[in-house]
Amino acid sequence: MVIIMKTGASPEEIAEVTHSIEREGFTPFENPGVERKVIAVLGVIHSHKLQLVDKFQNLPGVERVALISEPYKLPSRQCHPQDTVFEVGGVPVGGKTLAIFAGPCSIESEAQAIETARAVKAAGANFFRGGAYKPRSSPYAFQGLGEEGLKILAACREETGLPVITEVVDPDDVEKVCQYADFLQIGARNMQNYRLLQRVGQARTPVLLKRGFGTRLREMLMAAEYIMVEGNHRVALCERGIITFEDSTRYTTDINAVPVLKHLSHLPVILDPSHATGFSRYVGAVAKAGVAAGADGLLLEVHPNPAEALSDGPQSLKPEAFASLMRELARVASAVDRALPEQGA
Amino acid sequence: MVIIMKTGASPEEIAEVTHSIEREGFTPFENPGVERKVIAVLGVIHSHKLQLVDKFQNLPGVERVALISEPYKLPSRQCHPQDTVFEVGGVPVGGKTLAIFAGPCSIESEAQAIETARAVKAAGANFFRGGAYKPRSSPYAFQGLGEEGLKILAACREETGLPVITEVVDPDDVEKVCQYADFLQIGARNMQNYRLLQRVGQARTPVLLKRGFGTRLREMLMAAEYIMVEGNHRVALCERGIITFEDSTRYTTDINAVPVLKHLSHLPVILDPSHATGFSRYVGAVAKAGVAAGADGLLLEVHPNPAEALSDGPQSLKPEAFASLMRELARVASAVDRALPEQGA
Amino acid sequence: MVIIMKTGASPEEIAEVTHSIEREGFTPFENPGVERKVIAVLGVIHSHKLQLVDKFQNLPGVERVALISEPYKLPSRQCHPQDTVFEVGGVPVGGKTLAIFAGPCSIESEAQAIETARAVKAAGANFFRGGAYKPRSSPYAFQGLGEEGLKILAACREETGLPVITEVVDPDDVEKVCQYADFLQIGARNMQNYRLLQRVGQARTPVLLKRGFGTRLREMLMAAEYIMVEGNHRVALCERGIITFEDSTRYTTDINAVPVLKHLSHLPVILDPSHATGFSRYVGAVAKAGVAAGADGLLLEVHPNPAEALSDGPQSLKPEAFASLMRELARVASAVDRALPEQGA
Amino acid sequence: MVIIMKTGASPEEIAEVTHSIEREGFTPFENPGVERKVIAVLGVIHSHKLQLVDKFQNLPGVERVALISEPYKLPSRQCHPQDTVFEVGGVPVGGKTLAIFAGPCSIESEAQAIETARAVKAAGANFFRGGAYKPRSSPYAFQGLGEEGLKILAACREETGLPVITEVVDPDDVEKVCQYADFLQIGARNMQNYRLLQRVGQARTPVLLKRGFGTRLREMLMAAEYIMVEGNHRVALCERGIITFEDSTRYTTDINAVPVLKHLSHLPVILDPSHATGFSRYVGAVAKAGVAAGADGLLLEVHPNPAEALSDGPQSLKPEAFASLMRELARVASAVDRALPEQGA
Repeated sequence: MVIIMKTGASPEEIAEVTHSIEREGFTPFENPGVERKVIAVLGVIHSHKLQLVDKFQNLPGVERVALISEPYKLPSRQCHPQDTVFEVGGVPVGGKTLAIFAGPCSIESEAQAIETARAVKAAGANFFRGGAYKPRSSPYAFQGLGEEGLKILAACREETGLPVITEVVDPDDVEKVCQYADFLQIGARNMQNYRLLQRVGQARTPVLLKRGFGTRLREMLMAAEYIMVEGNHRVALCERGIITFEDSTRYTTDINAVPVLKHLSHLPVILDPSHATGFSRYVGAVAKAGVAAGADGLLLEVHPNPAEALSDGPQSLKPEAFASLMRELARVASAVDRALPEQGA
Repeated sequence: MVIIMKTGASPEEIAEVTHSIEREGFTPFENPGVERKVIAVLGVIHSHKLQLVDKFQNLPGVERVALISEPYKLPSRQCHPQDTVFEVGGVPVGGKTLAIFAGPCSIESEAQAIETARAVKAAGANFFRGGAYKPRSSPYAFQGLGEEGLKILAACREETGLPVITEVVDPDDVEKVCQYADFLQIGARNMQNYRLLQRVGQARTPVLLKRGFGTRLREMLMAAEYIMVEGNHRVALCERGIITFEDSTRYTTDINAVPVLKHLSHLPVILDPSHATGFSRYVGAVAKAGVAAGADGLLLEVHPNPAEALSDGPQSLKPEAFASLMRELARVASAVDRALPEQGA
Repeated sequence: MVIIMKTGASPEEIAEVTHSIEREGFTPFENPGVERKVIAVLGVIHSHKLQLVDKFQNLPGVERVALISEPYKLPSRQCHPQDTVFEVGGVPVGGKTLAIFAGPCSIESEAQAIETARAVKAAGANFFRGGAYKPRSSPYAFQGLGEEGLKILAACREETGLPVITEVVDPDDVEKVCQYADFLQIGARNMQNYRLLQRVGQARTPVLLKRGFGTRLREMLMAAEYIMVEGNHRVALCERGIITFEDSTRYTTDINAVPVLKHLSHLPVILDPSHATGFSRYVGAVAKAGVAAGADGLLLEVHPNPAEALSDGPQSLKPEAFASLMRELARVASAVDRALPEQGA
Repeated sequence: MVIIMKTGASPEEIAEVTHSIEREGFTPFENPGVERKVIAVLGVIHSHKLQLVDKFQNLPGVERVALISEPYKLPSRQCHPQDTVFEVGGVPVGGKTLAIFAGPCSIESEAQAIETARAVKAAGANFFRGGAYKPRSSPYAFQGLGEEGLKILAACREETGLPVITEVVDPDDVEKVCQYADFLQIGARNMQNYRLLQRVGQARTPVLLKRGFGTRLREMLMAAEYIMVEGNHRVALCERGIITFEDSTRYTTDINAVPVLKHLSHLPVILDPSHATGFSRYVGAVAKAGVAAGADGLLLEVHPNPAEALSDGPQSLKPEAFASLMRELARVASAVDRALPEQGA
């Protein structure tokens, strides 16, 4: 059960609700969000549920009580029936217009980054993506430019006006990354790095949470709960492929995840067909599938010269291929009453 | 390596090619196809490949020699670069117009079947599907009406003009099923039932081959080879979901399979979002994804009263929901330069 | 619910029980077993269960009524609490002494088969295994010697006294294979080939049922039900590896399956470490693991010259390696109060 | 390629080797280990390999040059052919005597911990395990006692003499945890948390690295490389179950992993049957399987009152059950020429 307080509920009203929860033998869990308090009622709730709903509903300052059968509360559509739409650097995520995050896997140099940022903006992307801290499976592989990469990202935003998204891998880096980035990315390998989730939950920068490649959707929603319970409610969920026995692609795109997540949760759902396929020749088909299935956006790897990319070259699109795909995506988006961002706007 | 003979190559020309293969130390494998002979060259082919290509290319009656690196030959796009399009009961499969196979999981009665057939035809389906022999995981579950069901299927075709597709589960039934059905379906559980594959390969009725839920795409193409090598080249490949750790849906739709199969093979690719999701509320999103990704058709379960269906009720669409989905699919199809069949045509 | 009749219950008593079931609104399902009738009560059984148990219990000819919560009935330990032990060619399967099925993947020639049969007998195997009908993923691969192979198997039994086991892949072959073999094997690819299951269920030759590599244990028990409901209760369950994302071995041995199957079912459980690993260097460790975990036997591929085997060479043990492994297995078996067959007995 | 320097090689000798590597066009990667320098030669090494081996072999201070075909170097058996055995708090890990890590999932109180520690010691465990920092999938679940838990662990060691192992989840906690614990555990969810791996690599406390439930063995060895390359070579690898489609157990124990890891790596291999099965009734069988397969130790959850455990109750053994299992394990260990620790020693 979750109790949603009215905007501007007083501390006394909140205290009365938490005491009331305790008097009934449950544990109140108050999220530290400043705008709208949501108080979770923890404990096994038996058949006297309905009476309690009435009781809590009538306390002063309470807007609404939601019964939630799932282990996750705040990301649940039961808790928040409407689709969540939030703005990042002036760009809405979750609404009619799709969020297109495009750019290289890794920021390799200022020249490479600016060239790519200009190209993806011209083709209609509304976010520039690029990795400064790279979690690589080999310690000998390129690990990213670190803070230098963050500065280049900021320069790309300066140059193009596109808000930027980048991955954060260490709780200690969250503050620094927030100084440069408009959107934080939690990578698949860190989806259950709870300390990192808590830290980005305490930040006020929105978070794109990628699904772990070996985790169920339910567990992904629990990971979103970890962020939201700290007060950061601007979370987008990203399907990026799961690990299965099929080996003709790098991962298996779980396209079912798009309607399932939209059904279970009110949060925006993004698809990453670059990682989910691993081969640039399959990216376009799966990107179109994602839009048709109802995704609120796409994460696409674009590199001016994939053959020489320091990471993920085989799955990166050239700028021309990206521009051409964007034209195709615009048609599919329109067929499902969505739209791509205005080109080069 | 595969040697494709000219249409109308003489028995002498064919014999000369097979002798020539043997003289080089390889084993010729001649498919019994009547229209166009294709002779596979079996054995390890080393560096002197290119010379052999030239040699075989110049033999009388040879149209073309294809080097094929994959273990499957006849379904390979290397062997047949153009998309295969074939007609079933006057309806093309694999071309611009999508093949929409709709109907109930099981034929339960003539009334149920005819009602559904009329409804799916009115909504634009160009094939009627229905099971007469059902492979059920429990021996106590409804096993289908058998030949009675086949007769009802034929009556549905009579009534609506739609060609009909139904599953065959026993090699001994193939001949009987071919008397009633226009299209044979091999179910997921029988994808590696090689005796059954050989028997449908010997038939002249086209075959829809469903992917085993625990098999790789490469193995599916090997299964297609089993059918084609017997001379039946009218095979369509059907992705119907694979088994993974994700449990919020019945199976995981491997949407990557659509572009991968189109890349590796020339055969038409069909998607079955009903089995691949297991819940009617997700069928529409995944159907649209399939069309956007380039599938050549869809297999959709439609039942006039899903709550009382004898099998697969939870994943069946009501006729109204199917009709509504068809309107949405028409828009997505058009966005990728494809089209749905003309409605009620 | 399952009603177990007394041995020798009269047709009238059986008829009374089935009528009684129908009068309560359920469907009786009578297995055609000759020795001991078991009548399944199909339908949703609600809270008045306990009364029905009493009622049915008191009917003449009834030995015992078992409430079974699982969808499978006859293989369930709820239905038959003791471990099942049955004899095949004089050798017990399921008791203290392990059943060791050893031999080549395919019967390639009489010389190869006899040599291997003598070697495995000398090392202590109590069953000789060998494939005459091979389900191969490529139609160009060696498909087995067919009836010729069955005759060689019979010659091996003649020579060594070991009962023989071989795979059957086509319902039409069941009768013929039963003429030669002591034990029928259903391969992983046919675990849900229900026609084949029914046909071997109608035979009186015991059946080793291999788990499909993409199927859950519950589904395997349902497959066993298909066989048992036809009256053949001598079924052994064989774990042979499942398909997962791990690619350093051919399949992943689901060692958990051993205690889970022993917990859920009374049938003997056999492990096949040859297929489950795919590499001879890992077979020994996994074979020992299987015995330690409580398996009732092992299926082991042995070939006099693995490098030249027509199938599955990389996972076959040489006779010397098999003999050496048997000595190690004897120690592990003894540590868990089991025993290997007496050597060369 | 990896160049192993002699113990006590001079800085000048090391510098000469790195220069020599650079002169050949490769990048040297020097691990900061103090006792024995190992210099990895990074870059694509073509056919002139053998000459280089000779060249590097003859440089002063070089003990040996190892050609390593795998992407991981330091955990590879190619780099270090003998089994690694290291001591932790006087107890050897990796040798003939098995390492038995037993204790509760979470430290809940001093009384619970001390009671369990005494019991597992009396039954023959040589390590006490207990979680102070718990990565839980729900933010509302018990998160562990934190530093208070570490102090209780130290008290348990004081009381019993058993060295203690506990999980570390945050890079910032590594130093603190090292003050209390003898052995650090990296949990499955953090197997690819590279910052954490680097930080424990910089510590001098040995590390038990658990396999991610969705990661391949190759990736686990790469994670070990991340730790070892920082200079901490005392790493044990722990299989704890992978995520598959089978749902009768919590995870699927990949028993193949035991011989595969022993084949590919020289590091000790530990099995965790508690997490890998998720049900206490299956733990014993799988524990015995692990020992029979060649594991160097076991991680076992023991709780005085599983029904009231704050985490992982269903998979925890009661102390009596643990003691009884230890007696059975001793017999299996002896059957494979291994031994359990002396009881209560």
